[in-house]
Amino acid sequence: MLSRTGQLLLAVLLSCFSHISKADDSTMFRKISDEIMLRGKCYENLRSLCKNIGHRLSGTPEAEKAVLWAQITLKEAGADTVWLQPVEVPYWYRGKELLSVQFPGSQEFVQVPALSLGNSEGTKGQLWEAELFICHDLKTLQETPADQIKGKIVFFNFRFPQEHVNTFHGYGQTARYRSIVPNTASAKGALAVIIRSVSTGEDDVPHTGVMSYADSVKPIPAMAIGNFTANKLEKSIHKGKIRVRMQSECTMKEPVLSYNVIGEIKGSVFPEEIIIAGGHLDSWDVGEGAHDDGSGCVQSIEIIRTFKQLGIKPKRTIRAVMFMNEENGLKGGIAYADSAKAAQEKHIFALESDAGAGAPRGIGLKMSEARRNFVRQFRHLFLPYGVYDFEQQYGGADISPLEKQGVPVAGLYPDPQRYFDLHHTSADVFEAVNHRELKLGAVAMTQLIYLVSEYGLGEEVTD
Amino acid sequence: MLSRTGQLLLAVLLSCFSHISKADDSTMFRKISDEIMLRGKCYENLRSLCKNIGHRLSGTPEAEKAVLWAQITLKEAGADTVWLQPVEVPYWYRGKELLSVQFPGSQEFVQVPALSLGNSEGTKGQLWEAELFICHDLKTLQETPADQIKGKIVFFNFRFPQEHVNTFHGYGQTARYRSIVPNTASAKGALAVIIRSVSTGEDDVPHTGVMSYADSVKPIPAMAIGNFTANKLEKSIHKGKIRVRMQSECTMKEPVLSYNVIGEIKGSVFPEEIIIAGGHLDSWDVGEGAHDDGSGCVQSIEIIRTFKQLGIKPKRTIRAVMFMNEENGLKGGIAYADSAKAAQEKHIFALESDAGAGAPRGIGLKMSEARRNFVRQFRHLFLPYGVYDFEQQYGGADISPLEKQGVPVAGLYPDPQRYFDLHHTSADVFEAVNHRELKLGAVAMTQLIYLVSEYGLGEEVTD
Repeated sequence: MLSRTGQLLLAVLLSCFSHISKADDSTMFRKISDEIMLRGKCYENLRSLCKNIGHRLSGTPEAEKAVLWAQITLKEAGADTVWLQPVEVPYWYRGKELLSVQFPGSQEFVQVPALSLGNSEGTKGQLWEAELFICHDLKTLQETPADQIKGKIVFFNFRFPQEHVNTFHGYGQTARYRSIVPNTASAKGALAVIIRSVSTGEDDVPHTGVMSYADSVKPIPAMAIGNFTANKLEKSIHKGKIRVRMQSECTMKEPVLSYNVIGEIKGSVFPEEIIIAGGHLDSWDVGEGAHDDGSGCVQSIEIIRTFKQLGIKPKRTIRAVMFMNEENGLKGGIAYADSAKAAQEKHIFALESDAGAGAPRGIGLKMSEARRNFVRQFRHLFLPYGVYDFEQQYGGADISPLEKQGVPVAGLYPDPQRYFDLHHTSADVFEAVNHRELKLGAVAMTQLIYLVSEYGLGEEVTD
Repeated sequence: MLSRTGQLLLAVLLSCFSHISKADDSTMFRKISDEIMLRGKCYENLRSLCKNIGHRLSGTPEAEKAVLWAQITLKEAGADTVWLQPVEVPYWYRGKELLSVQFPGSQEFVQVPALSLGNSEGTKGQLWEAELFICHDLKTLQETPADQIKGKIVFFNFRFPQEHVNTFHGYGQTARYRSIVPNTASAKGALAVIIRSVSTGEDDVPHTGVMSYADSVKPIPAMAIGNFTANKLEKSIHKGKIRVRMQSECTMKEPVLSYNVIGEIKGSVFPEEIIIAGGHLDSWDVGEGAHDDGSGCVQSIEIIRTFKQLGIKPKRTIRAVMFMNEENGLKGGIAYADSAKAAQEKHIFALESDAGAGAPRGIGLKMSEARRNFVRQFRHLFLPYGVYDFEQQYGGADISPLEKQGVPVAGLYPDPQRYFDLHHTSADVFEAVNHRELKLGAVAMTQLIYLVSEYGLGEEVTD
């Protein structure tokens, strides 16, 4: 056992080593960046996921193919161990759907692009027709007497607020209406609802996304329309009554057994300290889930590949986790956290990439201020890679159950300007992802995971 | 005349006012951002330029249409005065062009996507056929004996270096070969050259771009091919001889009279101090010149519109300048600087946007260190808009003749990851520009021009 003086000397000695290590970190950052920018596999892996499998909603055969794909790809990347973690997931079925509008003064119904909201119930395949009731905000909807809404189809015309530079702030304000509006409208006897999509797009692309019914209301159909159709309805409503026809087969089916996919490199010094980096493997049932969240998956796999290629033996255990069912249930994230707790695993850090494949601008840090400062001391190392913002406070949905257990979490913060043009749409395809932006995201993630694998996240200080 | 004490008191008083003004600046920054993000016209203006006119190489009828478009659009934006500044520009003509390759072991010639480099001479429309000589770097080309090159078509296979986070650094290393290679190859008796495009693209899109012939060499045809075709040639060359057929009508025609287009708001306090913000109106003769540089034009016009909409009366004179002929002659930039000098105009600052319509990350500052620090004092105001990098040192090509006269210059620094996938190609179309990214660029430019119009650029200090 060391004397007090001996302990002090050791501390000074260790801090010298630590200083030496930190000088080398900038070299390691460059090695990581060159490996990924020049020889990275994440872009080709994304092509494979998007083009060979495509979209992959929980419970579908495509989701199961994606599980096998992730297993094989993690092995190819060089993970020491790859395993599947069983998860029971909901299986929502879209089927055929149709929305058409009879504008004032016209005899015809014109079909418009529309997508049912995820988890919503449809018309059981029947064609329903009703008058449209338009309202622009929640307060108006809440204050409108039920007899003005009963039997009608409510059109909720709330615009995505475009003034926020960080579009996630606008998303937060808008996405909540996907559930609030159907429930509020149903309580007033509405037949169904249509919402203006949660979309920054200057286009007519409808965006799906999860909704849920309150136990107290009758589940009514809920569809989203694109901004151009919403604009047209908004203008036309002043000219007279609008009638709408809606038909959809969507419904919730029986749950299905699925899996999280996990690949690990065992830590060489502190193997019991676990660091995870992840994304979600499932996607909505339109497009190819390229930005959301194929990119987070291939970036997480790229971390494993890069450690192996560069021969880095991490001090702590690193796992790449592909979560199942983020979009409409979060069952994978919950199962992972439950399993970690049951096995008494010590997770010291969880990182998620689920904000699109834009060029990285920062890392959201949701942890104690002391730990945020611990990460921020490395800020100058990230700056040459365009990563400057360590002030956002978020992690990711899949790692939120771990966060509830007290695990420090972080989220890659990619440039958010284009994400909500594509999010949850048929336009979220491989071609919408830029190879350099995707790779730079993987670079920033690998650099951060490298630092935490070397230095941990600092001793916790009560703050 | 004030006593020394009086002067000191005035200085203290003025610094107080200056302090008050700076507190209001953050409010003005927000007003500017909201005006552009919520009611901006630059995206619709870009649509109009790209879709109603399309590409607009100097000397073409489309370039003349663009002059009229800029004149009308600047007037609609509310400029006090709009005028045309005559410029004699070169008129390079592409005509028909064709490149086909006979790979080793094949009897057939396969056509590949190719674009002649701008200002290059063609084959006078004749079909030329020759053996391919491949080389990967300039040193090899320089050291190869002429008899190995004479009569052949040289393929210069230098890859865009993808390891730079700022792709303009990779561009700088690569673009110079567009002239060096044809001249070096011609001196050794080559029939023609093909270069791997100056491109970050994971695709087969050829990129044009300017080249020029040294007086000492015979002008030989020069074409660019996409990365995929270049990869294929690179792999095939080991299997045997490759033969190539080339045909092109391109040639330089007689110069044409064209115009810079200028819109101005007269300064209310220091009208003789002129600030300009600009982009170039001409583009290459493929695609729609959306990123390069329709975006810089509509962003510059947006500055005028925003000042007018918000009722800001700038202390100094502000001009939006649409330069003609940046791509293959820089005649517009030279004419503007010559005219400014002849008229003894006092230009205190010139800003250009000619680096694409990515989300803004910073402002390049090419000026004295004292002036750079003057701008950097406002850095905290820009940070909420994602603009954090004031360390780059560049302005723009069109304002480089002003810079030579000693005018401090700056360049918008948009995120550069996607630019060199699209630059000088048929893929540089309106759809490749994101409306929010374009608008945020206009926001940063307007905010900077606002600051300089209020405060100038500081007294010059020798450094």
